[in-house]
Amino acid sequence: MKISHIEHIGIAVNSIEEALPFYENVLGFECYKTEEVADQKVKTAFLKVGDTKLELLEPTSPDSTVAKFLETRGPGFHHMAYAVEDGVANALAECGEKSIRTIDAAPRAGADGMNIAFLHPKATQSILTELCEKKK
Amino acid sequence: MKISHIEHIGIAVNSIEEALPFYENVLGFECYKTEEVADQKVKTAFLKVGDTKLELLEPTSPDSTVAKFLETRGPGFHHMAYAVEDGVANALAECGEKSIRTIDAAPRAGADGMNIAFLHPKATQSILTELCEKKK
Repeated sequence: MKISHIEHIGIAVNSIEEALPFYENVLGFECYKTEEVADQKVKTAFLKVGDTKLELLEPTSPDSTVAKFLETRGPGFHHMAYAVEDGVANALAECGEKSIRTIDAAPRAGADGMNIAFLHPKATQSILTELCEKKK
Repeated sequence: MKISHIEHIGIAVNSIEEALPFYENVLGFECYKTEEVADQKVKTAFLKVGDTKLELLEPTSPDSTVAKFLETRGPGFHHMAYAVEDGVANALAECGEKSIRTIDAAPRAGADGMNIAFLHPKATQSILTELCEKKK
């Protein structure tokens, strides 16, 4: 697959409101958007640093996977998302050929206008890895 | 402080040799350098993706902090390093003024020709955060 850059880094937080001052007032980034992703039961906040976004993830329900992540691991890195230039569907096909386990069998809609698919942490040394492309 | 981009993302692995095939053969990145950092008791491997490097970290001794990290958390994200444009010393001074706790009081030499300093995870919602600049 052809990856151009790290599209975003997902960071699990207990509260976006409490996390933002560090990113905005200390590191100097700007939160340009917040968005609720209903099917993932999360609220997201996006900040830009160079070519990459930071995506803060706050659960909106105790049965959100991010809520479960926070319970077991605490706040911190959640996932890494790479921008694929030749399409998420092609990348998934390549994973199939190379016997790389994926969570998603086909691209689906993610936050911030992207088509996304996740690889399985067992295939990625435990780093939850997302592939994404801008929706056409 | 003025951050231009994510300089690198540190990823703890049990074995660089076992981790590299995923990054090279599946994601398509190239490992352009390996380096041993004696005082951190780690071997590092660098791959480039866009403006950012991935820094794979393998402990060279059981008393390496990365070995302890692997013991308690397993392999995965280890730290996030931001490139500061106006210097690490200035960034640390700003942290002092803003009562942001740091691990390092002054810049020190890191891997890959950088001057670095770490902020304290208590100040960063548990994300070990490094500030760095190219050595002059």
